[in-house]
Amino acid sequence: MQTMFRYNWLVREEWYRWCEDVPEEELLRIRTGGVGGILHTLFHIADVEWSWVRALQGKPDFQESFEDYRSLEKVRRLDASFRQEVEEFLQSWEANMETLPFYDQQKDGEFSGYSWGEVIRHAIAHEIHHIGQLSIWAREIGRKPVSANLIGKGLIRPHIEKND
Amino acid sequence: MQTMFRYNWLVREEWYRWCEDVPEEELLRIRTGGVGGILHTLFHIADVEWSWVRALQGKPDFQESFEDYRSLEKVRRLDASFRQEVEEFLQSWEANMETLPFYDQQKDGEFSGYSWGEVIRHAIAHEIHHIGQLSIWAREIGRKPVSANLIGKGLIRPHIEKND
Repeated sequence: MQTMFRYNWLVREEWYRWCEDVPEEELLRIRTGGVGGILHTLFHIADVEWSWVRALQGKPDFQESFEDYRSLEKVRRLDASFRQEVEEFLQSWEANMETLPFYDQQKDGEFSGYSWGEVIRHAIAHEIHHIGQLSIWAREIGRKPVSANLIGKGLIRPHIEKND
Repeated sequence: MQTMFRYNWLVREEWYRWCEDVPEEELLRIRTGGVGGILHTLFHIADVEWSWVRALQGKPDFQESFEDYRSLEKVRRLDASFRQEVEEFLQSWEANMETLPFYDQQKDGEFSGYSWGEVIRHAIAHEIHHIGQLSIWAREIGRKPVSANLIGKGLIRPHIEKND
């Protein structure tokens, strides 16, 4: 699980660097699908990851709007401010937390019951899905997207037996 | 890990059903980004998942081209023909396989060394990434994409303590 989060953070950091070379108007341009724009997507990813971790802990989540974070620098700073709490939560993860119940209030006021294991995997898949959307928009503005490869990042080192 | 594969298969099946209502010319139309089209993406996802599972087992992977699978029915049938082997492989997964070494030959003839744990997570992330791309193309043709939610699919049931 931690591996998938570390993968997401590495890819996200690469997208932030990718954004450095893209005119801000392209980062802010309203696009079709997803949450509707490149920088807005990165904001949304950081927001949702942290919000789920907060929700599992019974803490209030992030309620602010992208309207207040319409620059690469602001989104990066926001993301960095969330990271430590997410890391600490993941480091405290134990197998018995997988099936802990979490009750999520829906828009209609009803509660849905999920397991913590589902919620944390939902957070993982959420980012990868939105990064896939960025890769299309990157090509649409004629730029090569960040690689989505998980292999090659040294996330889980192979155990090589030495014959000596 | 199995949870993420089951998630991917459920979402993929929903996309196949989504495709049933979309004219074939839209499924086959060349698009910007990714592998360049909706049905081609679903073919690619099934191909790559199975090919990694085959590669880990030291078996030859799938080498055929999308040109021979240009219909929803053909892609679904191909996918179904791969599924059992992938499921069996995942059911046989044990913790000590995480760091087994896997050597992948690159285009330049060099070998890269990965761990099995990285490869299997790469296969998971690969699908979610490409599904994110489909969600953009869906909106571009004016259709609602399949939900990418992992929660709400009953993949890991919460453990509810009964007071009785």
